[in-house]
Amino acid sequence: MLRTRLATAAVAIPLLVWIIAWNPWSLFAWLVGSAALVGVTEYFAMAFPDDRIDRAFGIVAGALVVVAMVVPSHELSGMALSGVVMAGLILALARNDDLHRGVVAVGTTMLGVLYVAFLLPHYVWMHGLQDPEKLGGAAGGWRWVVLTVVIAMAGDVGGYFGGRYFGKRKLMPEVSPGKTVEGTFGAFAANVAGAVFCKTVFFHALTAGEVLGFAVGVGSLAQVGDLCESMLKRAFGAKDSGWIIPGHGGVLDRIDSLVFPAPLVYYYARFFFHH
Amino acid sequence: MLRTRLATAAVAIPLLVWIIAWNPWSLFAWLVGSAALVGVTEYFAMAFPDDRIDRAFGIVAGALVVVAMVVPSHELSGMALSGVVMAGLILALARNDDLHRGVVAVGTTMLGVLYVAFLLPHYVWMHGLQDPEKLGGAAGGWRWVVLTVVIAMAGDVGGYFGGRYFGKRKLMPEVSPGKTVEGTFGAFAANVAGAVFCKTVFFHALTAGEVLGFAVGVGSLAQVGDLCESMLKRAFGAKDSGWIIPGHGGVLDRIDSLVFPAPLVYYYARFFFHH
Repeated sequence: MLRTRLATAAVAIPLLVWIIAWNPWSLFAWLVGSAALVGVTEYFAMAFPDDRIDRAFGIVAGALVVVAMVVPSHELSGMALSGVVMAGLILALARNDDLHRGVVAVGTTMLGVLYVAFLLPHYVWMHGLQDPEKLGGAAGGWRWVVLTVVIAMAGDVGGYFGGRYFGKRKLMPEVSPGKTVEGTFGAFAANVAGAVFCKTVFFHALTAGEVLGFAVGVGSLAQVGDLCESMLKRAFGAKDSGWIIPGHGGVLDRIDSLVFPAPLVYYYARFFFHH
Repeated sequence: MLRTRLATAAVAIPLLVWIIAWNPWSLFAWLVGSAALVGVTEYFAMAFPDDRIDRAFGIVAGALVVVAMVVPSHELSGMALSGVVMAGLILALARNDDLHRGVVAVGTTMLGVLYVAFLLPHYVWMHGLQDPEKLGGAAGGWRWVVLTVVIAMAGDVGGYFGGRYFGKRKLMPEVSPGKTVEGTFGAFAANVAGAVFCKTVFFHALTAGEVLGFAVGVGSLAQVGDLCESMLKRAFGAKDSGWIIPGHGGVLDRIDSLVFPAPLVYYYARFFFHH
Protein backbone atom coordinates (compact mmCIF):
# COMPACT_ATOMS: atom_id res chain seq x y z
CA MET A 1 0.00 0.00 0.00
CA LEU A 2 2.70 2.49 1.03
CA ARG A 3 4.93 1.32 -1.86
CA THR A 4 2.12 1.80 -4.40
CA ARG A 5 1.49 5.25 -2.95
CA LEU A 6 5.14 6.22 -3.21
CA ALA A 7 5.36 4.95 -6.80
CA THR A 8 2.28 6.94 -7.78
CA ALA A 9 3.73 10.00 -6.05
CA ALA A 10 7.08 9.60 -7.83
CA VAL A 11 5.31 9.83 -11.20
CA ALA A 12 2.63 12.33 -10.23
CA ILE A 13 4.61 15.03 -8.42
CA PRO A 14 7.12 15.95 -11.18
CA LEU A 15 4.29 15.84 -13.73
CA LEU A 16 2.21 18.18 -11.54
CA VAL A 17 5.06 20.66 -11.05
CA TRP A 18 5.63 20.74 -14.81
CA ILE A 19 1.94 21.25 -15.61
CA ILE A 20 1.38 23.88 -12.91
CA ALA A 21 4.51 26.01 -13.24
CA TRP A 22 5.90 25.66 -16.78
CA ASN A 23 2.94 24.86 -18.91
CA PRO A 24 0.42 26.81 -20.90
CA TRP A 25 -2.64 27.81 -18.99
CA SER A 26 -4.91 25.59 -21.07
CA LEU A 27 -3.20 22.35 -20.03
CA PHE A 28 -3.67 23.25 -16.37
CA ALA A 29 -7.33 24.01 -17.06
CA TRP A 30 -7.67 20.58 -18.66
CA LEU A 31 -6.02 18.94 -15.67
CA VAL A 32 -8.24 20.64 -13.09
CA GLY A 33 -11.31 20.25 -15.30
CA SER A 34 -10.67 16.51 -15.71
CA ALA A 35 -10.12 16.01 -11.98
CA ALA A 36 -13.34 17.93 -11.28
CA LEU A 37 -15.25 15.84 -13.83
CA VAL A 38 -14.05 12.58 -12.27
CA GLY A 39 -14.86 14.03 -8.83
CA VAL A 40 -18.38 14.90 -10.00
CA THR A 41 -18.86 11.35 -11.29
CA GLU A 42 -17.64 9.90 -7.99
CA TYR A 43 -19.84 12.21 -5.91
CA PHE A 44 -23.00 11.27 -7.80
CA ALA A 45 -22.14 7.56 -7.82
CA MET A 46 -21.97 7.82 -4.00
CA ALA A 47 -25.01 10.09 -3.62
CA PHE A 48 -27.36 8.19 -5.94
CA PRO A 49 -26.18 4.58 -6.08
CA ASP A 50 -29.67 3.33 -6.93
CA ASP A 51 -31.26 6.13 -8.92
CA ARG A 52 -29.89 6.28 -12.46
CA ILE A 53 -31.89 9.36 -13.48
CA ASP A 54 -30.71 11.49 -10.54
CA ARG A 55 -27.15 10.23 -11.02
CA ALA A 56 -27.12 11.02 -14.75
CA PHE A 57 -28.65 14.44 -14.19
CA GLY A 58 -26.12 15.26 -11.47
CA ILE A 59 -23.17 14.27 -13.65
CA VAL A 60 -24.43 16.36 -16.59
CA ALA A 61 -25.18 19.32 -14.31
CA GLY A 62 -21.75 19.09 -12.67
CA ALA A 63 -20.03 18.77 -16.06
CA LEU A 64 -21.78 21.92 -17.34
CA VAL A 65 -20.64 23.92 -14.31
CA VAL A 66 -17.08 22.55 -14.55
CA VAL A 67 -16.84 23.56 -18.21
CA ALA A 68 -18.21 27.05 -17.52
CA MET A 69 -15.79 27.48 -14.60
CA VAL A 70 -12.63 26.38 -16.43
CA VAL A 71 -13.40 28.39 -19.60
CA PRO A 72 -13.05 30.52 -17.32
CA SER A 73 -15.98 32.90 -17.15
CA HIS A 74 -17.91 34.32 -14.22
CA GLU A 75 -20.88 35.02 -16.48
CA LEU A 76 -20.98 31.49 -17.93
CA SER A 77 -20.56 29.99 -14.46
CA GLY A 78 -23.52 31.99 -13.19
CA MET A 79 -25.51 30.91 -16.23
CA ALA A 80 -24.60 27.25 -15.67
CA LEU A 81 -25.48 27.40 -11.95
CA SER A 82 -28.80 29.10 -12.72
CA GLY A 83 -29.55 26.55 -15.41
CA VAL A 84 -28.82 23.50 -13.28
CA VAL A 85 -30.86 24.62 -10.25
CA MET A 86 -33.87 25.31 -12.48
CA ALA A 87 -33.38 22.10 -14.48
CA GLY A 88 -33.06 20.11 -11.25
CA LEU A 89 -36.32 21.47 -9.86
CA ILE A 90 -38.08 20.94 -13.21
CA LEU A 91 -36.80 17.35 -13.32
CA ALA A 92 -38.20 16.68 -9.83
CA LEU A 93 -41.49 18.28 -10.90
CA ALA A 94 -41.63 16.22 -14.10
CA ARG A 95 -40.92 12.94 -12.27
CA ASN A 96 -43.60 13.87 -9.74
CA ASP A 97 -43.43 10.60 -7.82
CA ASP A 98 -42.43 11.42 -4.25
CA LEU A 99 -42.14 15.20 -3.98
CA HIS A 100 -40.15 15.18 -0.74
CA ARG A 101 -37.67 12.64 -2.04
CA GLY A 102 -37.41 14.60 -5.30
CA VAL A 103 -36.69 17.93 -3.60
CA VAL A 104 -34.13 16.34 -1.27
CA ALA A 105 -32.44 14.84 -4.34
CA VAL A 106 -32.24 18.28 -6.00
CA GLY A 107 -30.62 19.60 -2.83
CA THR A 108 -28.09 16.76 -2.77
CA THR A 109 -27.38 17.45 -6.44
CA MET A 110 -26.80 21.16 -5.82
CA LEU A 111 -24.49 20.36 -2.91
CA GLY A 112 -22.41 18.11 -5.19
CA VAL A 113 -22.36 20.68 -7.99
CA LEU A 114 -21.18 23.42 -5.61
CA TYR A 115 -18.77 21.23 -3.63
CA VAL A 116 -16.93 19.67 -6.56
CA ALA A 117 -17.78 21.49 -9.80
CA PHE A 118 -17.79 25.01 -8.35
CA LEU A 119 -15.11 24.99 -5.64
CA LEU A 120 -12.34 22.96 -7.28
CA PRO A 121 -12.04 24.99 -10.54
CA HIS A 122 -11.13 28.03 -8.45
CA TYR A 123 -7.60 26.68 -9.05
CA VAL A 124 -8.00 27.58 -12.73
CA TRP A 125 -9.10 31.12 -11.81
CA MET A 126 -6.14 31.33 -9.40
CA HIS A 127 -3.74 30.13 -12.08
CA GLY A 128 -5.00 32.81 -14.47
CA LEU A 129 -4.27 35.74 -12.12
CA GLN A 130 -1.78 38.31 -13.41
CA ASP A 131 0.82 39.83 -11.08
CA PRO A 132 0.08 43.44 -10.12
CA GLU A 133 1.95 46.14 -12.06
CA LYS A 134 4.40 46.89 -9.27
CA LEU A 135 5.58 43.27 -9.37
CA GLY A 136 6.03 43.26 -13.15
CA GLY A 137 2.53 42.26 -14.36
CA ALA A 138 3.62 38.75 -15.38
CA ALA A 139 1.39 35.66 -15.26
CA GLY A 140 2.21 34.73 -11.67
CA GLY A 141 -0.98 32.87 -10.79
CA TRP A 142 0.89 29.56 -10.74
CA ARG A 143 2.62 30.74 -7.50
CA TRP A 144 -0.70 30.76 -5.64
CA VAL A 145 -1.54 27.30 -6.98
CA VAL A 146 1.80 25.83 -5.90
CA LEU A 147 1.59 27.61 -2.53
CA THR A 148 -1.86 26.14 -1.82
CA VAL A 149 -1.01 22.64 -3.03
CA VAL A 150 2.32 22.54 -1.16
CA ILE A 151 0.78 23.69 2.14
CA ALA A 152 -2.17 21.30 1.88
CA MET A 153 -0.12 18.32 0.72
CA ALA A 154 2.59 18.96 3.33
CA GLY A 155 -0.22 18.88 5.89
CA ASP A 156 -1.41 15.50 4.57
CA VAL A 157 2.10 14.08 4.94
CA GLY A 158 2.69 15.73 8.34
CA GLY A 159 -0.65 14.45 9.57
CA TYR A 160 0.17 10.94 8.38
CA PHE A 161 3.53 10.76 10.14
CA GLY A 162 2.38 12.74 13.19
CA GLY A 163 -0.45 10.27 13.61
CA ARG A 164 1.73 7.26 12.90
CA TYR A 165 4.44 8.03 15.45
CA PHE A 166 2.59 10.02 18.12
CA GLY A 167 -1.09 9.26 17.50
CA LYS A 168 -3.03 8.44 20.66
CA ARG A 169 -6.29 10.36 20.95
CA LYS A 170 -8.80 9.87 18.13
CA LEU A 171 -9.99 13.12 16.51
CA MET A 172 -13.45 12.20 15.13
CA PRO A 173 -13.67 8.39 15.08
CA GLU A 174 -17.27 8.36 13.82
CA VAL A 175 -16.26 10.36 10.73
CA SER A 176 -12.67 9.37 9.98
CA PRO A 177 -11.36 6.55 12.20
CA GLY A 178 -7.68 6.96 11.27
CA LYS A 179 -7.29 10.60 12.29
CA THR A 180 -5.73 11.59 15.63
CA VAL A 181 -5.30 14.83 17.55
CA GLU A 182 -1.54 14.35 17.39
CA GLY A 183 -1.76 13.99 13.61
CA THR A 184 -3.48 17.38 13.49
CA PHE A 185 -0.51 19.00 15.21
CA GLY A 186 1.87 17.22 12.85
CA ALA A 187 -0.17 18.59 9.96
CA PHE A 188 0.02 22.16 11.27
CA ALA A 189 3.79 21.92 11.72
CA ALA A 190 4.12 20.68 8.15
CA ASN A 191 1.74 23.45 6.92
CA VAL A 192 4.07 26.08 8.37
CA ALA A 193 7.15 24.36 6.93
CA GLY A 194 5.47 24.17 3.50
CA ALA A 195 4.52 27.86 3.56
CA VAL A 196 8.04 28.92 4.59
CA PHE A 197 9.47 26.72 1.84
CA CYS A 198 7.26 28.44 -0.76
CA LYS A 199 8.21 31.94 0.40
CA THR A 200 11.89 31.05 0.32
CA VAL A 201 11.93 29.29 -3.03
CA PHE A 202 9.60 31.23 -5.33
CA PHE A 203 7.21 33.55 -3.43
CA HIS A 204 9.36 36.32 -1.89
CA ALA A 205 6.49 38.80 -2.20
CA LEU A 206 4.60 37.19 0.69
CA THR A 207 4.93 38.92 4.07
CA ALA A 208 5.73 36.91 7.21
CA GLY A 209 2.14 37.47 8.36
CA GLU A 210 0.82 36.08 5.08
CA VAL A 211 3.07 33.03 5.35
CA LEU A 212 1.71 32.24 8.81
CA GLY A 213 -1.85 33.17 7.80
CA PHE A 214 -1.83 30.87 4.77
CA ALA A 215 -0.22 28.05 6.78
CA VAL A 216 -3.02 28.23 9.36
CA GLY A 217 -5.87 29.12 6.95
CA VAL A 218 -5.04 26.66 4.18
CA GLY A 219 -3.98 24.04 6.73
CA SER A 220 -7.23 24.26 8.72
CA LEU A 221 -9.43 24.24 5.64
CA ALA A 222 -7.44 21.33 4.20
CA GLN A 223 -7.97 19.21 7.33
CA VAL A 224 -11.61 20.21 7.76
CA GLY A 225 -12.23 19.63 4.03
CA ASP A 226 -10.72 16.17 4.37
CA LEU A 227 -13.11 15.41 7.26
CA CYS A 228 -16.07 16.81 5.28
CA GLU A 229 -15.34 14.48 2.39
CA SER A 230 -15.23 11.56 4.84
CA MET A 231 -18.55 12.79 6.25
CA LEU A 232 -20.09 12.80 2.76
CA LYS A 233 -18.90 9.24 2.15
CA ARG A 234 -20.34 8.04 5.49
CA ALA A 235 -23.56 9.95 4.96
CA PHE A 236 -23.99 8.25 1.58
CA GLY A 237 -22.82 4.87 2.92
CA ALA A 238 -19.76 4.59 0.62
CA LYS A 239 -16.24 3.48 1.60
CA ASP A 240 -13.94 4.93 -1.08
CA SER A 241 -15.03 7.62 -3.52
CA GLY A 242 -13.66 5.60 -6.47
CA TRP A 243 -10.81 3.48 -7.73
CA ILE A 244 -9.03 5.52 -10.37
CA ILE A 245 -5.57 6.06 -8.77
CA PRO A 246 -3.72 2.87 -7.69
CA GLY A 247 -3.51 2.62 -3.89
CA HIS A 248 -5.27 5.94 -3.34
CA GLY A 249 -9.01 5.25 -3.45
CA GLY A 250 -10.90 7.70 -5.65
CA VAL A 251 -9.94 11.11 -6.96
CA LEU A 252 -12.16 12.81 -4.36
CA ASP A 253 -10.29 10.93 -1.61
CA ARG A 254 -7.02 12.27 -3.00
CA ILE A 255 -8.02 15.87 -3.55
CA ASP A 256 -10.34 16.28 -0.54
CA SER A 257 -7.80 18.44 1.29
CA LEU A 258 -7.32 20.66 -1.79
CA VAL A 259 -10.97 21.65 -2.30
CA PHE A 260 -11.68 24.01 0.62
CA PRO A 261 -8.45 26.06 0.52
CA ALA A 262 -8.95 26.97 -3.16
CA PRO A 263 -11.59 29.72 -2.71
CA LEU A 264 -9.79 31.15 0.35
CA VAL A 265 -6.54 31.61 -1.56
CA TYR A 266 -8.21 32.71 -4.80
CA TYR A 267 -10.34 35.46 -3.26
CA TYR A 268 -7.51 36.61 -1.01
CA ALA A 269 -5.17 36.85 -3.99
CA ARG A 270 -7.87 38.48 -6.11
CA PHE A 271 -8.94 41.15 -3.61
CA PHE A 272 -5.76 41.85 -1.63
CA PHE A 273 -2.96 41.13 -4.04
CA HIS A 274 -3.94 41.28 -7.71
CA HIS A 275 -6.11 44.37 -7.80
CA MET B 1 -59.98 37.58 -1.29
CA LEU B 2 -60.21 38.97 -4.83
CA ARG B 3 -60.98 42.46 -3.47
CA THR B 4 -57.93 42.37 -1.15
CA ARG B 5 -55.80 41.23 -4.09
CA LEU B 6 -57.04 44.04 -6.32
CA ALA B 7 -56.45 46.64 -3.58
CA THR B 8 -52.90 45.39 -3.03
CA ALA B 9 -52.32 45.45 -6.78
CA ALA B 10 -53.65 49.01 -7.07
CA VAL B 11 -51.02 50.19 -4.61
CA ALA B 12 -48.22 47.89 -5.66
CA ILE B 13 -48.23 48.24 -9.45
CA PRO B 14 -47.75 52.05 -9.75
CA LEU B 15 -45.11 51.88 -7.02
CA LEU B 16 -43.30 49.08 -8.89
CA VAL B 17 -43.36 50.96 -12.20
CA TRP B 18 -41.93 54.03 -10.49
CA ILE B 19 -39.17 52.08 -8.75
CA ILE B 20 -38.23 50.03 -11.80
CA ALA B 21 -38.32 52.63 -14.56
CA TRP B 22 -37.74 56.08 -13.04
CA ASN B 23 -35.71 55.46 -9.98
CA PRO B 24 -32.05 55.29 -9.12
CA TRP B 25 -30.52 51.90 -9.45
CA SER B 26 -29.89 51.58 -5.73
CA LEU B 27 -33.57 51.74 -4.75
CA PHE B 28 -34.32 48.90 -7.17
CA ALA B 29 -31.46 46.90 -5.68
CA TRP B 30 -32.94 47.49 -2.22
CA LEU B 31 -36.39 46.38 -3.43
CA VAL B 32 -35.13 43.14 -5.02
CA GLY B 33 -32.72 42.52 -2.15
CA SER B 34 -35.50 42.92 0.43
CA ALA B 35 -37.84 40.62 -1.49
CA ALA B 36 -35.05 38.06 -1.76
CA LEU B 37 -34.30 38.32 1.97
CA VAL B 38 -37.95 37.76 2.88
CA GLY B 39 -38.05 34.91 0.36
CA VAL B 40 -34.98 33.35 1.99
CA THR B 41 -36.61 33.59 5.42
CA GLU B 42 -39.79 31.97 4.09
CA TYR B 43 -37.91 29.18 2.34
CA PHE B 44 -35.97 28.22 5.46
CA ALA B 45 -39.03 28.49 7.70
CA MET B 46 -40.68 25.93 5.38
CA ALA B 47 -37.60 23.74 4.95
CA PHE B 48 -36.57 23.57 8.61
CA PRO B 49 -39.70 24.17 10.72
CA ASP B 50 -38.27 22.19 13.65
CA ASP B 51 -34.51 22.74 13.47
CA ARG B 52 -33.56 26.23 14.65
CA ILE B 53 -29.84 25.84 13.92
CA ASP B 54 -30.33 24.77 10.30
CA ARG B 55 -32.96 27.49 9.83
CA ALA B 56 -30.73 30.21 11.29
CA PHE B 57 -27.74 29.06 9.24
CA GLY B 58 -29.80 28.98 6.04
CA ILE B 59 -31.11 32.50 6.58
CA VAL B 60 -27.62 33.89 7.27
CA ALA B 61 -26.17 32.02 4.27
CA GLY B 62 -28.97 33.25 1.99
CA ALA B 63 -28.60 36.82 3.27
CA LEU B 64 -24.86 36.79 2.53
CA VAL B 65 -25.45 35.62 -1.03
CA VAL B 66 -28.26 38.16 -1.56
CA VAL B 67 -26.02 41.02 -0.41
CA ALA B 68 -23.14 39.88 -2.63
CA MET B 69 -25.50 39.56 -5.61
CA VAL B 70 -27.18 42.97 -5.28
CA VAL B 71 -23.90 44.84 -4.64
CA PRO B 72 -23.63 43.66 -7.52
CA SER B 73 -20.43 41.71 -7.96
CA HIS B 74 -19.72 38.41 -9.69
CA GLU B 75 -16.56 37.99 -7.60
CA LEU B 76 -18.31 38.63 -4.28
CA SER B 77 -21.18 36.33 -5.28
CA GLY B 78 -18.71 33.54 -6.05
CA MET B 79 -17.02 34.19 -2.73
CA ALA B 80 -20.33 34.11 -0.85
CA LEU B 81 -21.41 30.87 -2.58
CA SER B 82 -18.04 29.24 -1.86
CA GLY B 83 -18.21 30.39 1.74
CA VAL B 84 -21.70 29.11 2.42
CA VAL B 85 -21.18 25.65 0.93
CA MET B 86 -18.03 25.18 3.00
CA ALA B 87 -19.64 26.65 6.13
CA GLY B 88 -22.68 24.40 5.65
CA LEU B 89 -20.56 21.27 5.41
CA ILE B 90 -18.45 22.35 8.39
CA LEU B 91 -21.61 23.00 10.42
CA ALA B 92 -22.89 19.50 9.65
CA LEU B 93 -19.48 18.08 10.60
CA ALA B 94 -19.39 20.06 13.85
CA ARG B 95 -22.91 18.97 14.85
CA ASN B 96 -21.94 15.39 14.02
CA ASP B 97 -25.21 13.87 15.23
CA ASP B 98 -26.81 12.10 12.27
CA LEU B 99 -24.44 12.46 9.32
CA HIS B 100 -27.02 11.55 6.67
CA ARG B 101 -29.58 13.99 8.05
CA GLY B 102 -26.86 16.65 8.30
CA VAL B 103 -25.70 16.25 4.70
CA VAL B 104 -29.28 16.25 3.40
CA ALA B 105 -29.86 19.48 5.35
CA VAL B 106 -26.80 21.10 3.74
CA GLY B 107 -28.21 20.12 0.35
CA THR B 108 -31.63 21.59 1.17
CA THR B 109 -29.85 24.74 2.35
CA MET B 110 -27.85 25.05 -0.88
CA LEU B 111 -31.01 24.54 -2.93
CA GLY B 112 -32.69 27.40 -1.07
CA VAL B 113 -29.66 29.65 -1.39
CA LEU B 114 -29.46 29.04 -5.14
CA TYR B 115 -33.22 29.12 -5.76
CA VAL B 116 -34.00 32.36 -3.90
CA ALA B 117 -30.78 34.21 -3.05
CA PHE B 118 -28.97 33.50 -6.32
CA LEU B 119 -31.69 33.45 -9.00
CA LEU B 120 -33.88 36.38 -7.93
CA PRO B 121 -31.14 39.07 -7.74
CA HIS B 122 -30.46 38.50 -11.44
CA TYR B 123 -33.08 41.28 -11.77
CA VAL B 124 -30.56 43.69 -10.23
CA TRP B 125 -27.89 42.59 -12.74
CA MET B 126 -30.46 42.96 -15.53
CA HIS B 127 -31.40 46.45 -14.32
CA GLY B 128 -27.76 47.50 -14.36
CA LEU B 129 -27.16 46.61 -18.04
CA GLN B 130 -26.13 49.49 -20.30
CA ASP B 131 -27.54 49.80 -23.81
CA PRO B 132 -25.02 48.92 -26.54
CA GLU B 133 -23.25 51.83 -28.24
CA LYS B 134 -25.32 51.64 -31.42
CA LEU B 135 -28.48 52.22 -29.36
CA GLY B 136 -27.04 55.20 -27.48
CA GLY B 137 -25.28 53.53 -24.53
CA ALA B 138 -27.91 54.69 -22.00
CA ALA B 139 -28.89 52.77 -18.88
CA GLY B 140 -31.62 50.72 -20.53
CA GLY B 141 -31.59 47.71 -18.24
CA TRP B 142 -34.98 48.67 -16.78
CA ARG B 143 -36.56 47.71 -20.14
CA TRP B 144 -35.56 44.07 -19.64
CA VAL B 145 -36.92 44.09 -16.11
CA VAL B 146 -40.27 45.54 -17.16
CA LEU B 147 -40.44 43.17 -20.15
CA THR B 148 -39.90 40.13 -17.93
CA VAL B 149 -42.27 41.26 -15.18
CA VAL B 150 -45.01 42.25 -17.64
CA ILE B 151 -44.86 38.94 -19.55
CA ALA B 152 -44.80 36.85 -16.35
CA MET B 153 -47.49 38.84 -14.56
CA ALA B 154 -49.70 38.95 -17.67
CA GLY B 155 -49.38 35.17 -17.71
CA ASP B 156 -50.50 34.95 -14.07
CA VAL B 157 -53.60 37.03 -14.88
CA GLY B 158 -54.30 35.17 -18.16
CA GLY B 159 -53.92 31.85 -16.37
CA TYR B 160 -56.30 32.94 -13.63
CA PHE B 161 -59.07 34.03 -16.00
CA GLY B 162 -58.42 31.26 -18.53
CA GLY B 163 -58.80 28.74 -15.71
CA ARG B 164 -61.81 30.50 -14.21
CA TYR B 165 -63.91 30.65 -17.37
CA PHE B 166 -62.70 27.66 -19.39
CA GLY B 167 -60.92 25.46 -16.83
CA LYS B 168 -61.88 21.79 -17.08
CA ARG B 169 -58.88 19.48 -17.08
CA LYS B 170 -56.55 19.67 -14.05
CA LEU B 171 -52.89 20.27 -14.93
CA MET B 172 -51.00 18.78 -11.94
CA PRO B 173 -53.54 18.31 -9.14
CA GLU B 174 -51.01 16.66 -6.79
CA VAL B 175 -48.75 19.74 -6.98
CA SER B 176 -51.07 22.70 -7.52
CA PRO B 177 -54.77 21.78 -7.33
CA GLY B 178 -56.10 25.05 -8.80
CA LYS B 179 -54.22 24.93 -12.12
CA THR B 180 -55.90 23.74 -15.32
CA VAL B 181 -54.73 22.96 -18.84
CA GLU B 182 -57.06 25.68 -20.15
CA GLY B 183 -55.48 28.18 -17.74
CA THR B 184 -52.09 27.36 -19.28
CA PHE B 185 -53.37 28.34 -22.71
CA GLY B 186 -54.85 31.54 -21.27
CA ALA B 187 -51.46 32.29 -19.74
CA PHE B 188 -49.64 31.81 -23.05
CA ALA B 189 -52.09 34.10 -24.87
CA ALA B 190 -51.51 36.75 -22.20
CA ASN B 191 -47.72 36.22 -22.40
CA VAL B 192 -47.80 37.05 -26.12
CA ALA B 193 -50.05 40.07 -25.52
CA GLY B 194 -47.71 41.30 -22.78
CA ALA B 195 -44.62 40.93 -24.97
CA VAL B 196 -46.28 42.75 -27.88
CA PHE B 197 -47.36 45.51 -25.50
CA CYS B 198 -43.76 45.97 -24.30
CA LYS B 199 -42.35 46.13 -27.82
CA THR B 200 -44.96 48.68 -28.84
CA VAL B 201 -44.70 50.93 -25.80
CA PHE B 202 -41.02 51.07 -24.86
CA PHE B 203 -38.94 48.28 -26.43
CA HIS B 204 -38.86 48.93 -30.19
CA ALA B 205 -35.40 47.37 -30.47
CA LEU B 206 -36.82 43.85 -30.04
CA THR B 207 -37.32 41.86 -33.25
CA ALA B 208 -40.59 40.00 -33.88
CA GLY B 209 -38.74 36.74 -33.27
CA GLU B 210 -37.51 38.00 -29.90
CA VAL B 211 -41.01 39.12 -28.93
CA LEU B 212 -42.37 35.64 -29.62
CA GLY B 213 -39.32 33.95 -28.10
CA PHE B 214 -39.58 35.91 -24.86
CA ALA B 215 -43.34 35.36 -24.68
CA VAL B 216 -42.85 31.59 -24.93
CA GLY B 217 -39.58 31.38 -22.94
CA VAL B 218 -40.50 33.70 -20.08
CA GLY B 219 -44.07 32.41 -20.09
CA SER B 220 -43.05 28.74 -19.85
CA LEU B 221 -40.45 29.37 -17.16
CA ALA B 222 -42.94 31.53 -15.22
CA GLN B 223 -45.55 28.75 -15.19
CA VAL B 224 -43.04 25.99 -14.46
CA GLY B 225 -41.42 28.14 -11.75
CA ASP B 226 -44.83 28.64 -10.16
CA LEU B 227 -45.35 24.86 -10.12
CA CYS B 228 -41.86 24.32 -8.70
CA GLU B 229 -42.57 26.67 -5.80
CA SER B 230 -45.79 24.73 -5.12
CA MET B 231 -43.75 21.53 -5.24
CA LEU B 232 -41.30 22.92 -2.65
CA LYS B 233 -44.19 23.85 -0.34
CA ARG B 234 -45.74 20.38 -0.65
CA ALA B 235 -42.39 18.66 -0.24
CA PHE B 236 -41.81 20.61 2.98
CA GLY B 237 -45.43 20.18 4.11
CA ALA B 238 -46.27 23.92 4.15
CA LYS B 239 -49.42 25.59 2.82
CA ASP B 240 -48.45 29.21 2.20
CA SER B 241 -44.86 30.43 2.08
CA GLY B 242 -45.70 33.27 4.49
CA TRP B 243 -48.18 35.99 5.36
CA ILE B 244 -46.51 39.27 4.54
CA ILE B 245 -48.75 40.61 1.73
CA PRO B 246 -52.51 40.81 2.56
CA GLY B 247 -54.50 38.22 0.58
CA HIS B 248 -51.47 36.93 -1.29
CA GLY B 249 -49.85 34.34 0.97
CA GLY B 250 -46.10 34.84 1.32
CA VAL B 251 -43.65 36.74 -0.82
CA LEU B 252 -42.41 33.51 -2.41
CA ASP B 253 -46.01 32.70 -3.42
CA ARG B 254 -46.23 36.09 -5.11
CA ILE B 255 -42.91 36.10 -6.92
CA ASP B 256 -42.72 32.40 -7.78
CA SER B 257 -43.44 33.08 -11.45
CA LEU B 258 -40.74 35.80 -11.57
CA VAL B 259 -37.82 33.70 -10.34
CA PHE B 260 -37.10 31.33 -13.25
CA PRO B 261 -37.40 33.86 -16.12
CA ALA B 262 -34.79 36.19 -14.54
CA PRO B 263 -31.63 34.28 -15.53
CA LEU B 264 -33.00 33.50 -19.02
CA VAL B 265 -33.60 37.17 -19.79
CA TYR B 266 -30.45 38.40 -18.07
CA TYR B 267 -28.04 36.06 -19.86
CA TYR B 268 -29.80 36.55 -23.19
CA ALA B 269 -29.57 40.32 -22.81
CA ARG B 270 -25.98 40.08 -21.59
CA PHE B 271 -24.66 37.81 -24.33
CA PHE B 272 -26.80 38.68 -27.36
CA PHE B 273 -27.76 42.29 -26.82
CA HIS B 274 -25.45 44.21 -24.51
CA HIS B 275 -22.06 43.00 -25.64
